[in-house]
Order: sequence, then C-alpha cells, then structure tokens
Amino acid sequence: MLPPAHDIARLQPLPVALVDELTTLLGQRFSTSASVREHHGRDISALDPLPPQGVAFVNHLDEIIAVQQACHRHRVPIIPYGSGSSLEGWLHAVHGGVCIDVSAMNQILEIRVDDMDVTVQPGVTRKQLNAALHGTGLFFPIDPGADASLGGMAATRASGTNAVRYGTMRENVLALTAVLADGRVLHTGGRARKSSSGYDLTHLLVGSGGTLATVAELTVKLHPIPEAISAAVCNFPSVDQAVQTVIQAIQLGVPIARIELIDALTVRALNAYSKTRLNEAPSLFFELHGSQSSVQEQVETIRLLADEHGGQDFEWAVHPEDRSRLWQARHDGYFAAVALRPGCRALTTDAVVPISRLAECIEATAADLQQQGLLAPIFGHVGDGNFHAVILVNPDDPEEVQRADGVAQRLAERAIALQGSCTGEHGVGLTKQAYMSLEHGQNAVDVMAAIKAALDPQQLMNPGKIFPRGPAVD
Amino acid sequence: MLPPAHDIARLQPLPVALVDELTTLLGQRFSTSASVREHHGRDISALDPLPPQGVAFVNHLDEIIAVQQACHRHRVPIIPYGSGSSLEGWLHAVHGGVCIDVSAMNQILEIRVDDMDVTVQPGVTRKQLNAALHGTGLFFPIDPGADASLGGMAATRASGTNAVRYGTMRENVLALTAVLADGRVLHTGGRARKSSSGYDLTHLLVGSGGTLATVAELTVKLHPIPEAISAAVCNFPSVDQAVQTVIQAIQLGVPIARIELIDALTVRALNAYSKTRLNEAPSLFFELHGSQSSVQEQVETIRLLADEHGGQDFEWAVHPEDRSRLWQARHDGYFAAVALRPGCRALTTDAVVPISRLAECIEATAADLQQQGLLAPIFGHVGDGNFHAVILVNPDDPEEVQRADGVAQRLAERAIALQGSCTGEHGVGLTKQAYMSLEHGQNAVDVMAAIKAALDPQQLMNPGKIFPRGPAVD
Repeated sequence: MLPPAHDIARLQPLPVALVDELTTLLGQRFSTSASVREHHGRDISALDPLPPQGVAFVNHLDEIIAVQQACHRHRVPIIPYGSGSSLEGWLHAVHGGVCIDVSAMNQILEIRVDDMDVTVQPGVTRKQLNAALHGTGLFFPIDPGADASLGGMAATRASGTNAVRYGTMRENVLALTAVLADGRVLHTGGRARKSSSGYDLTHLLVGSGGTLATVAELTVKLHPIPEAISAAVCNFPSVDQAVQTVIQAIQLGVPIARIELIDALTVRALNAYSKTRLNEAPSLFFELHGSQSSVQEQVETIRLLADEHGGQDFEWAVHPEDRSRLWQARHDGYFAAVALRPGCRALTTDAVVPISRLAECIEATAADLQQQGLLAPIFGHVGDGNFHAVILVNPDDPEEVQRADGVAQRLAERAIALQGSCTGEHGVGLTKQAYMSLEHGQNAVDVMAAIKAALDPQQLMNPGKIFPRGPAVD
Repeated sequence: MLPPAHDIARLQPLPVALVDELTTLLGQRFSTSASVREHHGRDISALDPLPPQGVAFVNHLDEIIAVQQACHRHRVPIIPYGSGSSLEGWLHAVHGGVCIDVSAMNQILEIRVDDMDVTVQPGVTRKQLNAALHGTGLFFPIDPGADASLGGMAATRASGTNAVRYGTMRENVLALTAVLADGRVLHTGGRARKSSSGYDLTHLLVGSGGTLATVAELTVKLHPIPEAISAAVCNFPSVDQAVQTVIQAIQLGVPIARIELIDALTVRALNAYSKTRLNEAPSLFFELHGSQSSVQEQVETIRLLADEHGGQDFEWAVHPEDRSRLWQARHDGYFAAVALRPGCRALTTDAVVPISRLAECIEATAADLQQQGLLAPIFGHVGDGNFHAVILVNPDDPEEVQRADGVAQRLAERAIALQGSCTGEHGVGLTKQAYMSLEHGQNAVDVMAAIKAALDPQQLMNPGKIFPRGPAVD
C-alpha cells in the first residue's frame, strides 16, 4: 500500500535556471520549503508522501502557461494540484518535479441560470460553488466525500452519492480550458448541451488525472433544486435483499437521487462517530427528489419494494435538518470508519460492477476480509454498483498490511472478472496500475499510451500515474 | 453543397493482390460492381455520391479484422458502413478504398434486464433493437429520424428527440469493441455504470465517424418504459415564446422526455405529408414520461407555463395511437419538408446553441433565409438547443445552391459565435470541416489530428473526413 518512494537525494535537483525563472515569475508564490513540499506530496490516502521539488502557487491561466513552458524547456515534471483530497496517490511526485497549485484560482466566473451551467476556475470547491448558487434555484450535485476542487474532480472523473440520478463528472463537464505540457492552451467542448463536432477531447481529459494537461477552467452543468426532498433509512436482513430492492426500484423508473448501501459495521461506526442511533444491520440510505406528490409516490413505491425484501425500521426524514444529519453521517463514513481503530491507516477500495453482480461482489469481499481477520466497514453507491471497503490496518504491522493488500488485489480482480472496474471514482493514480491491462486489455492500454505520447511526448505531465511503470527512472 | 468529386479514373485502382485476398476471404461478399459501389458511396444527404472501389460485406469480427489487415498491408482506405443514413457525407469515398458494410452483423447478443443494458452487433438498427426489447419493460431511446444502425449512431454521436431526457449516444454507449486500421481489436469502457480507470476511449470513439476504428460491437444503456406517456402539441405566437416556455419548464425540473419546436412552414409540410390538421404556427410537440400522477402533474405545469407565454390550442394525445401519429408526423419532418418542393434537394443544417440563445439564433436564420428567398422548414430539439433548417433548393440552379450554402455557412458561424456548435448530431463528415478550427480552436484541432496520427498513422480510416483537407490527394 505504500508507493516505492523515490530517493529524493538521488533525483536531479531542479535546474537553477528554472528555480530562478519561477521565482522571478511568482516571487514567494514559488516555494521549495520542505513543509510546503511535504504538504503537496500527499493526498488523503494511506500512502506515504512523495514531495515535489517545488510548488508553484498560480493565480491565473497565464501563470500556468508560463510555469509549464519553463518546466517544459527544462524537461521537469509537472503535477497539477487542486485541494489535495485524492485517494490514489495522484499528487505524489514519483519522479520529482514542480507541483502547480491552482487552489487560489477559485473564482466563479459566470453563472448562467437560463442555460443551467456555470464556468469556474479549477480551484473552486464543490461546497463553495453550491454556496454561490444560493438563490438561483440550481445546484451542483456531484459530492465526493471531501470538499474537493472542481479541477481535481474533473481530473479524477469523480462522483459521489448523487451519480445514480445526476451522473458523474463525466456527464457534467461541458467544456474545459486546459494547458498542455508545452504551454499550449486547449479549449474543449462548448456550452451547447450536445455536439457531434470532432473528437470528444473533454471526455479524454476528464479522468486523465493531470497526465495530459492542467485544467485551468471548467464549465459544468447545474441542476434544478427539487421542489421536495425526502430522505430515508431502512434495514435489510442481507446485502442481497437491499440490492434487489434497488434493482427493482430502478427498473420501475423510480428516479432515485441517492441510494447508498451501508453495512452493519459502517452503521456501528456512524453511530459512534456521528451520534446517530441507527440499527446495526445492512442499510439503505435513500434520497428522493421531485415535486411533493412525485416524492410521495416514490416513497410509497420504495417502501413497498423494501417490504417485499424484508426491509425494516423505515425512518423518513423530511425536515431539512434531519436530512442533513442523515447525509452528513453518510458523508462522514470514511472518517467514521477510520475512527473505529485509533492509530490505524485506511486502505480504501473502489470497485464497481454491474448492479446485478453487486451483492455477490460485496459478499465475496466481506468473506475474504473476515477470513483475513481484517476490520473493514463497507459502504457504497449501490445505484452505480460502486462500493468502498475501508480496510483499517496497523501501519506498523507489515504482515497485516500485506493481508489487506491481498484483499484489495483480489477485489480488483473480482470486479474486473464481473465486467466491472477496479476503480469507480478514485482513479488509477499510483496504486491501481497493475490492473490496467487486465481491465482494458493490452491493446487499449497501448492506445492510451499512444495518446499520452502524442499529447505529452516528453512525459512531463504527472508522470508515473495510470500507466504501469517500467523500470524505475529514479 | 456538393463534394469535390474525386476523379475515380485517376485513383490508383485497388491492388490486384488485395482484390484477390478479399475475394478469397469473402467470395461474392466482396463486390466491385458499379451498382453496389454507387449505393455505398452516398448517404441520405444531398451530396453527389463518391463510390468506394470495393465493398466488403462482413459477417463477423474476424472478417472485419481480416479485411482491415489486408487493406492496411496495401495502404488502401477503409470506410465503415452501417445503414447508409448519415447526412454529412460520412460514407463518401473521398480517396477511394474499400467500404466495410457491417449491416449483416445484426445480432442482438445479450439483453440484461437487471443491469438495463444490451450488447449488440453494429448493424442492429434502433427499431430492431426496440422490437427485440418487447416484453422486457425496457427501451432504447435514441431516435434519429432514420432507422439507423447502432454502429453508425455511435460513430456519428447521434441523438434525436429524446436526448433532453435520455441523452445522446455520448451518454448511452457503455462499451465498444472496435477494430483499429491495422486490425488490432480494442475493447473500451465496460458494463459498470461508471469507472475512473484510464482514458475514456469509449467517448473518443463515439463521434469519431470511423476515422479511428470500425465499431464491431456495442453495449448500450436501456431505460425503463414509463408507466404513463402523454403527448401534446401547442401553438405559440412566436418562436421566442415557445423557447421561453421550454426554458422555464426545464428550470422547474419538469423531466420532459421530448420537446420539439416546429415552425409554421414545417407544420404546413406535416399537414400536407402526414394528413395532420395542425395550426400553421410555431408549435411545440411535447412528450412526458412518468407515473400516471407524475405525468398529470407535468401536463399541468407545462400548460400553465405555455399559457403564460401565449400558448394556444393545446391538444393532448394520451392514447398510444394518437401519440404515435403525432410523433410519426414529427419523425417524417425531413421527408415532409422535402416533399414541399418536388424535385428539390435538401440542404440540412444542424446548429446547436445554449438554449438561452436558441430563439435569437433561429430568428436570425429565418430572416437570412427570407432575405435570400429560400424555402426552408425549421424544426428541432429545443430542449438541447439544436435545430435543423431544411433548405430546399433546385439542384440545377447553381446560383440558388450558392445562396443556400451562404445561409448554412452564416448559420454555422452564428452558432459558434453563440458558444454553440455547427453540428449537434450529424457530425462534421465532409461538409463542416471548414468550421473545425473556428469552433474548437487550432490547438484542439491539432490535438485531434495528433490522436488520429497516433491511432491511424497511415491515415487509412475514413480519410478526408472531419479534418480540414489539405491539397487534394487524388
């Protein structure tokens, strides 16, 4: 679970000329201090940090261009950085280089209510955006656990609890401005809701994790705030029965906005962390959006379906504060899980499978975890077939870490064998490169590498990510 | 409006060795007959045909691979062909070569009701698929006017009247099997509803119009057939008032399934062609999907909004046969338009703009058409901001053809200036190459060309499409 640390002492130091150029350009906004570098060489995963050699705090597009042109001239790696909340080592400076921190580029440039879209700088966070949308009747639905930056969310093809209804970043990014390694500025997509013109470069960049370009501006879709929202929680005798309830609800066309599966251990963790008093059994958290009567109808349909599958202890939360408490508890799932075992590190899995195989995949994973004697709350986005096991390990026990790695590996392979993916929303980053060929086939990986080479021939953009690494460079 | 015809007499003939290989492989399913070639060198646009030099009727993946490997060895262009219903010259053999007709690959391989997806061969048509889904409770929503093949629909990033609710091919293709120029087989995407693994090659191929690979298999999303469907038509005093009604309905979160704008001239054409008796005024055709009560509620909301904007003569069609008649009339829009002027050819535009600019764009286009004395029914997918002007011209009047070309050109430029696209669903093909740089910027076009070169270095896949042509090769 730990990356092969580069031996920073053995890296070529940053060229003095480059340091001079960046210092002239940015003044104190270019930093080589150890604490700044350390902070930028990690994410919220359990991976040990691999700090970049310098951090450039940029304020606008021209500075991104200038920094990248300078790095390109000196053949120094470039690592875009948003809010630091990735989970797969996207930000680790495997080959050293300069981190470009865009978090100060946090202006909301234009909200267009009639077109239900907004153009933002990449450092804008999802909570900041939704605060700015107050009073427009619109909201931005995508909600990874952390208050991530939109640039980073685009880069990792992030999603969250709403994806079953509102899609992921894949479905919600309309247009990007991005900077290629050599400083060329690329505009992709547009504000029209569809276009058949040319290759879809927007979708190529969404999910590319900074390995092709730095996101400098985004236009994303907004959605109407529903007239009515209702939330609920319900227990089931088994994961399978919970999943069957969801499958049938979706087939009936119930436009569920959120539908989260939470195992008994996660419920225990939430009760402890968030002071909720939920029954410790496999549970579904629902949220339904629509008009008053449509939500009421959705409630009734789901209740009926849940009853058929042994659902119990329905609790509906109609008041905003009750809903918020319920969903805040769910959003705190990761932190609640980690709090179950003080001093532990969390190895978070991210498998996604076709929903018909979800119960089977979760149950096999739970059995494997039990067999290995590991503590791992499981929860996930059941409407998408995506779930997370948060495996809690003692970082000082290499044998336990190894057992956890084994479970994660078998899970990735299991998900792929079930025609799913080893990563639903966190991305490949550093840690899932071994599965690229298994999941996509070698021809597809070769094509991806050919595209990378065509856009970034010097392999400067976030090197060492996504693609299985060859012999270590450093 | 007519492509620069290649002088087929000046093309290098197909190498005898290639003809021999393909004949050995396919027998009579490889044809060089003039009538077969002529049929495969055209689409349903007004463009004069440019026939390929041979047509390979393939029955399975291995034959696509073998044909492409043979063409690749001999450096002969490859043009994938589905049902021949493109509108932008996608099938024209600008540089000669071999057409690969996949229409016989029309097996529906697996319908998975629980996962709401289906895997099909590329020659399956949308109507065939929906017939096969009978009894499953699911349907495939994307409906370009013609009964297109799914492979072709993926290639052109097609959509239709349902896109406002169900998305276009961009949102509905989950996975592809495709064959690169050199015969390598590529698997993209997967059956999970989302994945963050690797570059999004599915979206790169969707819309690439056969210029990167031949689609050999697709997995697409299916959707639940709604419990209730209601259709309606309503007149408005102006296009702008119709569009305002739609904008407000969408902002209120009314989940409209279809919303088509039809100008007065198109209504006249439909009345004549489909024996409808609609009022000759700008009209909206609606279709609403949901539960009985949700549809009823949608009806009431829309009626209220339409009233506010001068909407009149609401007619609701609840019975399936009435709905079918209404929507069949809409689907016949193109043919009804063409029938307005016997002997004419139709130049169909395909602009798409942010919806807030739609009325302005349509009105400016209508004024331009009037000023040029051209007859052109206008209709479109107002929820997406996409509309078609079907400009009816006398092909024997070069001056009139030129005036029509002028209107189409100004419309493409107008749409791009309004932050839209020159093509919402037909694609660039042969006829919109001049706008690539204007719409995407030269850097993006350069990146697209670099990707094309990386995947198809010999430029064999459907050459002469999408990218602005340099000096003529032939």
